[in-house]
Amino acid sequence: MNTDLFTRMQELRDLAGVIGLASWDQETYLPKKAEAGRAAQLATLQGLYHERLTDPRLGDWLGDAKPKDDDEKAMVRILGKERDRAVKIPQSLVKELAEAQSHALSAWRDAREKKDFALFRPHVQKLLELRRAMADAWGHDGERYDALLENYEPGMRVKRLSPVLSGLRTKLVPIVNAIDAKPPPKRIFEGKKFDPDAQWKFTMSLLEAMGFDLDAGRQDKSTHPFTGGTGLYDVRLTTRLFPDLPLSSVFSTIHEGGHGLYEQGFDPKHVRTTVAQAPSMGLHESQSRLWENVIGRGRAFWSHFFPKYAALFPSQLSGVSVDDFLREVNRVERSFIRVEADEVTYNLHIVLRYELELELIRGNLQAADLEAAWNQKTKDLLGLEVKNVGQGVLQDIHWAYGEFGYFPTYALGNLYAASLWKTMSREVSGLEKSISDGELAPVKRWLREKVHGEGFRFDAEALVTRVTGQGLTDDDFIAYLKMKYGALYGI
Amino acid sequence: MNTDLFTRMQELRDLAGVIGLASWDQETYLPKKAEAGRAAQLATLQGLYHERLTDPRLGDWLGDAKPKDDDEKAMVRILGKERDRAVKIPQSLVKELAEAQSHALSAWRDAREKKDFALFRPHVQKLLELRRAMADAWGHDGERYDALLENYEPGMRVKRLSPVLSGLRTKLVPIVNAIDAKPPPKRIFEGKKFDPDAQWKFTMSLLEAMGFDLDAGRQDKSTHPFTGGTGLYDVRLTTRLFPDLPLSSVFSTIHEGGHGLYEQGFDPKHVRTTVAQAPSMGLHESQSRLWENVIGRGRAFWSHFFPKYAALFPSQLSGVSVDDFLREVNRVERSFIRVEADEVTYNLHIVLRYELELELIRGNLQAADLEAAWNQKTKDLLGLEVKNVGQGVLQDIHWAYGEFGYFPTYALGNLYAASLWKTMSREVSGLEKSISDGELAPVKRWLREKVHGEGFRFDAEALVTRVTGQGLTDDDFIAYLKMKYGALYGI
Repeated sequence: MNTDLFTRMQELRDLAGVIGLASWDQETYLPKKAEAGRAAQLATLQGLYHERLTDPRLGDWLGDAKPKDDDEKAMVRILGKERDRAVKIPQSLVKELAEAQSHALSAWRDAREKKDFALFRPHVQKLLELRRAMADAWGHDGERYDALLENYEPGMRVKRLSPVLSGLRTKLVPIVNAIDAKPPPKRIFEGKKFDPDAQWKFTMSLLEAMGFDLDAGRQDKSTHPFTGGTGLYDVRLTTRLFPDLPLSSVFSTIHEGGHGLYEQGFDPKHVRTTVAQAPSMGLHESQSRLWENVIGRGRAFWSHFFPKYAALFPSQLSGVSVDDFLREVNRVERSFIRVEADEVTYNLHIVLRYELELELIRGNLQAADLEAAWNQKTKDLLGLEVKNVGQGVLQDIHWAYGEFGYFPTYALGNLYAASLWKTMSREVSGLEKSISDGELAPVKRWLREKVHGEGFRFDAEALVTRVTGQGLTDDDFIAYLKMKYGALYGI
Repeated sequence: MNTDLFTRMQELRDLAGVIGLASWDQETYLPKKAEAGRAAQLATLQGLYHERLTDPRLGDWLGDAKPKDDDEKAMVRILGKERDRAVKIPQSLVKELAEAQSHALSAWRDAREKKDFALFRPHVQKLLELRRAMADAWGHDGERYDALLENYEPGMRVKRLSPVLSGLRTKLVPIVNAIDAKPPPKRIFEGKKFDPDAQWKFTMSLLEAMGFDLDAGRQDKSTHPFTGGTGLYDVRLTTRLFPDLPLSSVFSTIHEGGHGLYEQGFDPKHVRTTVAQAPSMGLHESQSRLWENVIGRGRAFWSHFFPKYAALFPSQLSGVSVDDFLREVNRVERSFIRVEADEVTYNLHIVLRYELELELIRGNLQAADLEAAWNQKTKDLLGLEVKNVGQGVLQDIHWAYGEFGYFPTYALGNLYAASLWKTMSREVSGLEKSISDGELAPVKRWLREKVHGEGFRFDAEALVTRVTGQGLTDDDFIAYLKMKYGALYGI
């Protein structure tokens, strides 16, 4: 490959890594008074990144790329596309968006506090207009939402996604109804306290068991758990420790550990290149959800780990069986808040947001009508009456960032996870047995070989198709839910 | 000031801050396997910094600066000088130095391990040649060492420094001899263990007492203590905790706390400008040494803190009086290793290095003769026979980085500290009483008003002259030593 091009690509990856470090630090160790300074540093780094990416010389080098093999072709393709999308947006629009985001964020906080959507409404409208303008600048064939999806899920299109999500809607509602007719699991944690140090110790033992390399990553604490870091040898997870909500740390760690294994699993030969990244948010999320939900809320996993967990909290868990525990961690409940939803109802929260976003971007729904539309859909999909905007239309921060097109990637994560799990179960002999022995290496090994190591050589659906023999589908997910919850709830 | 110029200055300060973050992280939280990746990220950031600094447009903007007041004049002057020095060194020389440093560092490690200076010798010679070439590129009036000093101590010159350091040599030797004739203090820590958690707690209480703002900074652990961070609201100290060397954490923390208060003490109106930095390494060091040695090894300080320290370690310190403790922490001893030296002998270690460096840079001494020259000077100055290069010419890492001109700043720190202390004692009424009550706020307040808040508005000696009424002198330091050690050793 053209040396100038290769060097610039490495420089951009280094800058992205440093942005990752500064962002991680912001959520973990940054002194309180340094917030404004850090925002300025991040803006400077992002400005430099953008300048180096849109540099006309990079355009020339890309035109004269001379990739020598498939890997280099992928590097050039990914970088070229990133640059192409960046140059299409005029700096004035970038700036206008940044300002609108900043105003929208404080309006969103204010509106939540005062429980008044009207305070946020003009900002959503503004962000929608800007995002529609950006979609037009990027280009699309009549469906603006496609151009936005491309930010998070390259290659995905509305005409591919909509049928799958509306199928999900149809299939999930009766499952939820069936579960709802059964008595709920008993609450086994209520009124108990779980020492944060012991929780921390347990989460570290989980990361070790998952094969997360602590010489190439770390875990710290933050208000909102996330996965960040600076590269495949420096992957940083966070978790949070609530004395009265012990499951929070356990499942945060498994979830972020799943993301982390993906980041650590890129091929070392792709280090400092554009290939050492996941092809989409949805595929990334498939890894966290596969570990958190499919494995980490499964019977095999806890048949090994529950005795260890109970040994750390002998009084709190005395008289609690592994069955009680499994029913607790798989409690299904209609609820208002997406981030607290179980894996059965979760996708209904996504369908709700997707359907609204699509109509907003298409211009069929106005910000003025958004709150009413939200409440109506919550009733239709979840059977719940929204009482206040905090548990309704203002619950998520995404729209305050102008992030339209992001939500569906969570559902894609669930669907891809189920399909990958099905294939893994077929290809890895003795998988359940191995997991129930606490031996998780075969899971990591299979994922690394089939998914992680490929990096961004293919788009997400193409990669999933290579691995599972089929593309995006809800069949495996629905089959998985029916099997698992059929057993748990006796339906 | 010209807006482009101001923006570029802020950008450079942001980049310097981010380099500070990545370097801090490297010594504190970076996963082991990420070392090569971090080196690449730092090289990228430094390359960008250099490119933005030497950008021809910045030269134009500096030429058309239009500073509106003294502060802006200082900003322009500092940035202009930094840029001027950067553009004078061709990129080929920068690169050659970086490579020579990298080879010299591994040769230095190897030579230390094999106790063979010859392995390091050609690398010193190479680095000397490169540094002489750089001195010539920067320009000087016949004394190349001046151009190197300028890296660390802007404005300082050999003809100013040499008489002071040779005066120090003359005055220190008889003081050391007099102390040497007295019985040494008894060893009060031998064979005892000090819990690291309790040590940590004590160091944090010291930082709090010093007025170090933990909302604008933090303390962590690292192998070698240092002060870093990303700006005046984000100052990061490190310390280290050895169970059998309890004084290490105490005095590291006070030392770095002194540096840290300087960094936190710049004027907030200078944030993200070139003025928000110390004018020299020597003046920076004066702050750490004033706190560590003058205050932190003083009777007033420990009359308040010793009971608290003893309460944390009741069995280890039972039967130890504050006098025993003071004699222990002010033990004077001829020793081989600079970093372990007490404040009386310390400057002799600096004189030794300065005299050698000056002759090396002048070309009067060759790398081939450096080991013998070192050993001879150790005998002359300290009365010790060097037995191996690890306790001799290979003890410090500085020359492996090609850092010639750095060592004298440590001595300047001691001298400036004594002069500032003398003036502070005169100007702040009840200072000793206040310190002995554990009330250190008047010290911080005076230093902030007189020194820290000025930032880099003046060169170090000019600033010290404004504050104390006199420039660089060893009078105050020698008087301080005589008073303090006269009392401690009864001489």
